[in-house]
Amino acid sequence: MRVKPSRLWHSIEEGHKRTLKAGKLTEKVLKLFVATGNDEVLAFIQALNIQHVVTPVLPTTNIKDSDVDIVIGALHSDLTSFLNEWRPIFSRFHLIIVKDPDLKEELRIPEGFNLDVYSKSHIDRVVGSSSSMVFSGYSCRYFGFLVSRKKYIVSIDDDCIPAKDSKGFLIDVVAQHLVNLATPATPFFFNTLYDPFREGADFVRGYPFSLRSGVTCALSCGLWLNLADLDAPTQALKPELRNSRYVDAVMTIPSRAMMPLSGINIAFDREAVGPALLPALKLAGEGNLRWETMEDIWSGMCVKVVCDHLGLGVKSGLPYVWRKDRGSAIESLKKEWEGVKLMEEIAPFFQLVRLPQTAATTEDCIIEMAATVKQQLGPSNPVFTRAAEAMVEWVKLWKAVGSGSSPL
Amino acid sequence: MRVKPSRLWHSIEEGHKRTLKAGKLTEKVLKLFVATGNDEVLAFIQALNIQHVVTPVLPTTNIKDSDVDIVIGALHSDLTSFLNEWRPIFSRFHLIIVKDPDLKEELRIPEGFNLDVYSKSHIDRVVGSSSSMVFSGYSCRYFGFLVSRKKYIVSIDDDCIPAKDSKGFLIDVVAQHLVNLATPATPFFFNTLYDPFREGADFVRGYPFSLRSGVTCALSCGLWLNLADLDAPTQALKPELRNSRYVDAVMTIPSRAMMPLSGINIAFDREAVGPALLPALKLAGEGNLRWETMEDIWSGMCVKVVCDHLGLGVKSGLPYVWRKDRGSAIESLKKEWEGVKLMEEIAPFFQLVRLPQTAATTEDCIIEMAATVKQQLGPSNPVFTRAAEAMVEWVKLWKAVGSGSSPL
Repeated sequence: MRVKPSRLWHSIEEGHKRTLKAGKLTEKVLKLFVATGNDEVLAFIQALNIQHVVTPVLPTTNIKDSDVDIVIGALHSDLTSFLNEWRPIFSRFHLIIVKDPDLKEELRIPEGFNLDVYSKSHIDRVVGSSSSMVFSGYSCRYFGFLVSRKKYIVSIDDDCIPAKDSKGFLIDVVAQHLVNLATPATPFFFNTLYDPFREGADFVRGYPFSLRSGVTCALSCGLWLNLADLDAPTQALKPELRNSRYVDAVMTIPSRAMMPLSGINIAFDREAVGPALLPALKLAGEGNLRWETMEDIWSGMCVKVVCDHLGLGVKSGLPYVWRKDRGSAIESLKKEWEGVKLMEEIAPFFQLVRLPQTAATTEDCIIEMAATVKQQLGPSNPVFTRAAEAMVEWVKLWKAVGSGSSPL
Repeated sequence: MRVKPSRLWHSIEEGHKRTLKAGKLTEKVLKLFVATGNDEVLAFIQALNIQHVVTPVLPTTNIKDSDVDIVIGALHSDLTSFLNEWRPIFSRFHLIIVKDPDLKEELRIPEGFNLDVYSKSHIDRVVGSSSSMVFSGYSCRYFGFLVSRKKYIVSIDDDCIPAKDSKGFLIDVVAQHLVNLATPATPFFFNTLYDPFREGADFVRGYPFSLRSGVTCALSCGLWLNLADLDAPTQALKPELRNSRYVDAVMTIPSRAMMPLSGINIAFDREAVGPALLPALKLAGEGNLRWETMEDIWSGMCVKVVCDHLGLGVKSGLPYVWRKDRGSAIESLKKEWEGVKLMEEIAPFFQLVRLPQTAATTEDCIIEMAATVKQQLGPSNPVFTRAAEAMVEWVKLWKAVGSGSSPL
């Protein structure tokens, strides 16, 4: 039997080495423990190096509204009802609306929002027409990620409206995403009572104290009520199936576990992982229905590998949005099956890919991954070679445009 | 950048090699697809080798009542109210009640149950008094696991009563555990809509079809309302904290992710992983309050490593039980801190331990792990050496007693 050193071990060791802050213990309880006068208690406090200044019970959410851009990819020209539905939640924030370059009609946008609109002419100016980057369809939103100058991005599909929680209250999707991002993630050990940083929750018995300070959460993946994000075959199989289960939980996806990121309802720390949210995998028969696309799944695999490598966290669960019905799964099946087949190669590839220690930034990680994609997946399908090229080009663009400090 | 072969890869490859059953596709939808007459659709069906006889939408739960033992460790002599509370749920099943050998008083058990009671004299006869196996306190239940002859075990702490779900209905803890065990687990890829085999749920877009048949679920970990299973320092910190959040979800804990198994409310496939549920880690100051024990956490780490190695699954979430308040966390802290400290060594050890390919059964795995525990953890604390010895002895006992086909 062998025990191999690994990156995970390093992460855990790092946890040990760091001053043990003893998770959510507070000054108050520390005094309580000290007051027992029990030798064992005192020795324990000393052994764990519990500081008299400890972390607050709930880390303070100090994300300002001005730290956030809401990015909407406009696949439909009339955004009136969409934006009016979201007005109570979005109106405090700056919006970036990117018009699908394939969309011919003028956008219709209601009054009363602080927003910038980007269209094909902006994209051509920044990216150039000779580029291998394609910003059509759902991929248009990535242009918004590129030109934002904010620390946090929230991005919602334009066929979603606000959902209600199990008590019938309107869900503030932005507030919940920001709480997810502002509180630590715990990827190195699974907490059976879900996110320990939620009100009323905590770490369960047996959770190592040295891992309770957690890591920075870089990505928050929200979910969907009504029309779930199923693939076309599954939706075709169950045309009446709707997701009506409101699961009142947020959790960290464990380190090294892969999941299918849906781009429908996400938020992320743009400064930390922005370059990993990229439009790389473009299907030949891609349309503008979610089950005809894979760009978000590919991007999600990239960002999860980057987070695992850099010691960042990914959360999934709350907040929910309400997805309106759109399109026919059977019609989609007639034109697009490629994505389902590609996952059989994509999933094991990302599960096994490991990045070198020298990859210290998200940009480095994407460049490394692109080379491996080209080498290992490229020979089986040209779609992967194109994805690898798009990844390299995206990083160049990000360095030139996305990490700049002045607005575009 | 390197991509290393690993066990996980083998598992995924196995998935590829197996006939792709296309998850939850049914005969009906297959006919629907074939009826489109579209070449792409037909080619896809052929490429995925989708069989005309496909798995039903929900695997049939075919666990008979007679396949189940409910094991209760009696740490209190009066089981009257406990069993009366559980009567609507337990009375159909055979019960094994193991009396804590430290408990002096006679057990009080109400009429109307089909049960066997085991006490100190039975334990001494089977195990012998010279043994390093200790069955006192919460560890007494493991004797029940040993003498059972059933395929499935459900085990609930004797300070729990049935909980109600968010709609106010009584939760049938046994039925939910058996559904968890009877439906596949999906440890190789995280499904963001939780257990895809629940009614109303399915696999989300991007989930590889070759992984949708899943693996056998060997362990179901239920949760707790009211008094959550926190450690003594956390409970002391928040004396008023109660868990009131009913999270309506079951999920598979991803492969290679570790979690703190609580023994309060569990069920498992005894034939598959019984030998991994063992009383090995006994704390010096262990009492009969949950936050004074670690035997279940240790056992949970063992069983998770075994499941990951053998390609079995572990689920967590539903069903909930209602835990009644008991004991003072502050008093417990005065006598027992050791468990919290030990986790700092235990967690990284189990996270990194890898079993040789030759370990093909749960018994093999435990013997291998015991040797590594002794070698790697033993030098730091004699409690680990004793745990390793108990693991070896448990496997011997299991082979002699537990795997026998005739009732004790």
